[in-house]
Amino acid sequence: MGERKKFRVIFQPSGKRGEIEEGKSVLEASIELGVGIESLCGGKQRCGKCKVKILAGEFSPFTEEEAKFIEEPERAKGFRLSCSARIFGDALIFVPEESLIQRQVIRKEIIEKKIELKPAIASYFVKLDPPSFNDLLSDFSRLQRALLDKYSHPPLNIDYPVLIKLPHILREGDWNVTVITWMDREILDVKRGESSELYGLAIDIGTTTVAGYLCDLRSGKTVAAQSMMNPQVLYGEDVMSRITYAMTQQGGLQILHKAIIDGVNQLAKIIIEKIDLSPEDILELTVVGNTAMHHLFLGIDPRYLGVSPFPPVLQHSIDLKARDLGIRVHPSANIHVLPIEAGFVGADNVGVLLALEPYKQEEIVLIIDVGTNGELVVGNRERLLTASCATGPALEGAHIEFGMRAAPGAIEKIEIDAETFDVTYEVIGDVRPMGICGSGIIDAVAELYRVGIIDPSGRFRKDINSSRIRWKSGKPEFVIAWGEETSIGREIVITQKDVRNVQLAKSALYAGAKLMMKRLGIEKLDKVILAGAFGSYINPKKAMTLGMFPDCDLKHVYAVGNAAGEGAKIAILNKDKRIEAEEIIKKVEYLELTIEPEFQKEFIEAIHIPHMNDRFPSLSSKVS
Amino acid sequence: MGERKKFRVIFQPSGKRGEIEEGKSVLEASIELGVGIESLCGGKQRCGKCKVKILAGEFSPFTEEEAKFIEEPERAKGFRLSCSARIFGDALIFVPEESLIQRQVIRKEIIEKKIELKPAIASYFVKLDPPSFNDLLSDFSRLQRALLDKYSHPPLNIDYPVLIKLPHILREGDWNVTVITWMDREILDVKRGESSELYGLAIDIGTTTVAGYLCDLRSGKTVAAQSMMNPQVLYGEDVMSRITYAMTQQGGLQILHKAIIDGVNQLAKIIIEKIDLSPEDILELTVVGNTAMHHLFLGIDPRYLGVSPFPPVLQHSIDLKARDLGIRVHPSANIHVLPIEAGFVGADNVGVLLALEPYKQEEIVLIIDVGTNGELVVGNRERLLTASCATGPALEGAHIEFGMRAAPGAIEKIEIDAETFDVTYEVIGDVRPMGICGSGIIDAVAELYRVGIIDPSGRFRKDINSSRIRWKSGKPEFVIAWGEETSIGREIVITQKDVRNVQLAKSALYAGAKLMMKRLGIEKLDKVILAGAFGSYINPKKAMTLGMFPDCDLKHVYAVGNAAGEGAKIAILNKDKRIEAEEIIKKVEYLELTIEPEFQKEFIEAIHIPHMNDRFPSLSSKVS
Repeated sequence: MGERKKFRVIFQPSGKRGEIEEGKSVLEASIELGVGIESLCGGKQRCGKCKVKILAGEFSPFTEEEAKFIEEPERAKGFRLSCSARIFGDALIFVPEESLIQRQVIRKEIIEKKIELKPAIASYFVKLDPPSFNDLLSDFSRLQRALLDKYSHPPLNIDYPVLIKLPHILREGDWNVTVITWMDREILDVKRGESSELYGLAIDIGTTTVAGYLCDLRSGKTVAAQSMMNPQVLYGEDVMSRITYAMTQQGGLQILHKAIIDGVNQLAKIIIEKIDLSPEDILELTVVGNTAMHHLFLGIDPRYLGVSPFPPVLQHSIDLKARDLGIRVHPSANIHVLPIEAGFVGADNVGVLLALEPYKQEEIVLIIDVGTNGELVVGNRERLLTASCATGPALEGAHIEFGMRAAPGAIEKIEIDAETFDVTYEVIGDVRPMGICGSGIIDAVAELYRVGIIDPSGRFRKDINSSRIRWKSGKPEFVIAWGEETSIGREIVITQKDVRNVQLAKSALYAGAKLMMKRLGIEKLDKVILAGAFGSYINPKKAMTLGMFPDCDLKHVYAVGNAAGEGAKIAILNKDKRIEAEEIIKKVEYLELTIEPEFQKEFIEAIHIPHMNDRFPSLSSKVS
Repeated sequence: MGERKKFRVIFQPSGKRGEIEEGKSVLEASIELGVGIESLCGGKQRCGKCKVKILAGEFSPFTEEEAKFIEEPERAKGFRLSCSARIFGDALIFVPEESLIQRQVIRKEIIEKKIELKPAIASYFVKLDPPSFNDLLSDFSRLQRALLDKYSHPPLNIDYPVLIKLPHILREGDWNVTVITWMDREILDVKRGESSELYGLAIDIGTTTVAGYLCDLRSGKTVAAQSMMNPQVLYGEDVMSRITYAMTQQGGLQILHKAIIDGVNQLAKIIIEKIDLSPEDILELTVVGNTAMHHLFLGIDPRYLGVSPFPPVLQHSIDLKARDLGIRVHPSANIHVLPIEAGFVGADNVGVLLALEPYKQEEIVLIIDVGTNGELVVGNRERLLTASCATGPALEGAHIEFGMRAAPGAIEKIEIDAETFDVTYEVIGDVRPMGICGSGIIDAVAELYRVGIIDPSGRFRKDINSSRIRWKSGKPEFVIAWGEETSIGREIVITQKDVRNVQLAKSALYAGAKLMMKRLGIEKLDKVILAGAFGSYINPKKAMTLGMFPDCDLKHVYAVGNAAGEGAKIAILNKDKRIEAEEIIKKVEYLELTIEPEFQKEFIEAIHIPHMNDRFPSLSSKVS
């Protein structure tokens, strides 16, 4: 057949991915994968609208036509015209907002808690007496004295780069300066005259998505936010494949470490530019992430996380200089990495707990942090249990035929008419659909079950007649959107395999939660909270219909958005919460599900929709 | 006349320097300046014995002949054959020990005090329990627990580079490791198994000479020592000219900073190799130096030290990571820079005080730290006064016609027969002389005065007849060694200008000391201590004959060697002494001599030998 070689291509920030034939243009690949790249001239290298930034991969050489639209320094940064660059290797491609047919929408967080403002960063304006023969104090001692006199501030250390510039700043500022301190123990910067802006950046490193929140440390407000795909995706979809990459590839750890550092730098740059700040304005970062992301961000070899009994290298929080990690913000900025709980229950879950505070509550709660790696917490202020389960990325839209991130063009809500099997759906960004995101996928499977197209085992029923049910090489699929409705010119379908992947993911969560309840002797949950960036969009009823978690009064099942990121924000705005985080990790008990003898049995029972044996009284009264 | 251009050439480590005509070979220059470079073939590029290392300057291109003797990596390091490399610009040349006709001798320190051993660096051997499902502590917490269990050691921070390697070291060492800590608060290193060696390096950065002492932190012994010329000499002989260079030259500060960092690295390397250590074995450095050297070492702009009222930028001690300063020892090593007193009375003087402890004694002492920048301390435990005076480098052998460092070939002692004017001298290294070092110069001027060749004003008497007294273009000089006695084939003489330079230097010291005594209301000194590397070789009687300091019983005038370096050693061996150093700078009162109205008058009176008015009762009874 002489079939052409295929390469793996991933587009950022949408996360759309697939196998693309050698020699196809990036624009062709984008159409095939449903990434909406603008192209007014129709791929004739004439409009220059389809610019993309190459993050990794091999491509055809830069052409003269491209040079007309892409000049230095853009060229040096890897910009290409997507109609011109042809693919000759696995590729990671970033589509800038201006090249997207539909621009990215920023969705509001569902909860934004009022956080008591107590940042680690503070600033003090002081007027110094200039030196004289009667007052020969050194510049630094002079500064200390002024801080003592005006603010009764005890002695401080000074970060070395600040010391170097201190004499100049003092004199240029005519001895009036603003001192910026960290934790009341170190001087991070000294600025001429009076200066009042203080910013911090909270970062949530997910296996698939990295989110950043720029916080004004004076008002406590989040002034800009942005998310992007974790660039490590190119080296493995999930935690285990990244660990394997670090273990088996020459220089793998360094490649993964550099990928996330570069990614955070890129994210920080985009966020900073949104409100016209400079990198030096960012004085602190807080970072959360699961244990593997935590280790890779710090450059710590994660190989032992992959080997029983999976101990982390570092559990407690750590403070580092931005310059030591190569993060391009203020060189003296502190990076506070939150502690991790145990095994794969990482700093992201600590962030979730900080945000939701189950350790202060009487009610029994189940918190599900849905992501590529699912994390579970069950309990209340008496006792808290935590566990991790490998759900895989299906609930985030990956490994699903038409799955995509929750980006414009994604179908996020689906209803199927029980009689006609007609489909109603909602699309993010109010445009024509190009794929289905996590919440849409859960909706789809729950609805397919509700209307009887699939049976409790997840199999498509063979006895149903509908133009929407098609059989391809003996495998069934259900058409969610017809070709003429979509922006990709093809039908968007849910396949038997998609249903199976969703079942595997949801049964891991269910089995984990149930085992934890057993351990705590809990019969019934008072509350179920869905955390995680995409958890916000999950319809609680549909998720319970699917059997994603044990029964609970639906009034008390709700989503809270990216609670891990919220925890990172809490930690940047209130330093006392960092101590609270350390206390959390002492309190929370970790359950290693992989060594629980009952796990396999529970898992198999939970593959059924909603469950092989368990009942859902809260559901039966509400579902038709 | 078509006179050739001349360039300034300085040889290390001897410090010999002079103006050399363009195009002359390095070997020719070395002969002219009295640097003993080995050359068996007589400069025919055949023996390869005359290798030198070019530190700076422009030279003729590398030749094929040289390539026969100098291969990579030596060539890349700047090695040349001195008979082949011709001079085409100002040059700084290092003559390695193996190329010297006479090898460097290491002289013993005069005092080596017993220092209580209490280093900041400690090591702990621990055996850890490997992780299991019942014991899922992180690697770092596991290490902390072992330290707590075995040594009751409170929690420690861990330096970031150590954290990165921790998981590997623990497993490679089969969970048996040695933990190296700093100040009981940070882990600097973790080594496989049991490891017992701990080393620190004490560094004294003088304006002209940098000295390093490698200390075994277990025994307290100095196991290796080395000194070298401060490479900044190329950019200015004294403190003020260096400050001017930093202020006026583009990138001057960075050039000077890099020069001393490179210099310390070079010195550390030589010392480390002496006892076959690797740079990673050095876990801490203590550094002393005058205020300008202190600032330049830290990369702090010294320009404000040159502008009234001369405040330093930093007075207190500071601890830095070696990697932050680019010092190539253990990357986590701490660099403790001792505090400075005030103005030009720097960390070197703090070192002197730590070594001599005048603040604990009843007797009134005058401490003279003789160097390019002279520092004075007068007082006792009641009250201590300190001051700085610019003596210039004459007392170290610079700006003296045949002056040189106290290296082999230097005349260090001189006696002149009162009747015949015959000269007896002693040479360092017991070889033929090539110059005169500081102590020899003081001897020479004192003896010229004692035998009546020069009068109290320092002028050569015109009425004395001796073949040793010669007049050149109307200017007198005295022959110390005849051409046939020397290794340079020429006479070694003391000129009228040399005498004048010594007078200016000694009168600055005398005037300073006298003013300080006045301030304290002191009539008579109980003790005079000569500190500074070359102070050890000064003959106290001759120095008093010259009038270098006020009268004192000669029994109580003595030299102590490099007390500043001794102070650095004390600080590396005993961390409590660092706190004592901070107390010293609070106690010592600084006197700014340049603004003392009487200084000029005292200075002029002290130019006379021994003094215009003051008497020396202690001397008159002993000097013939």
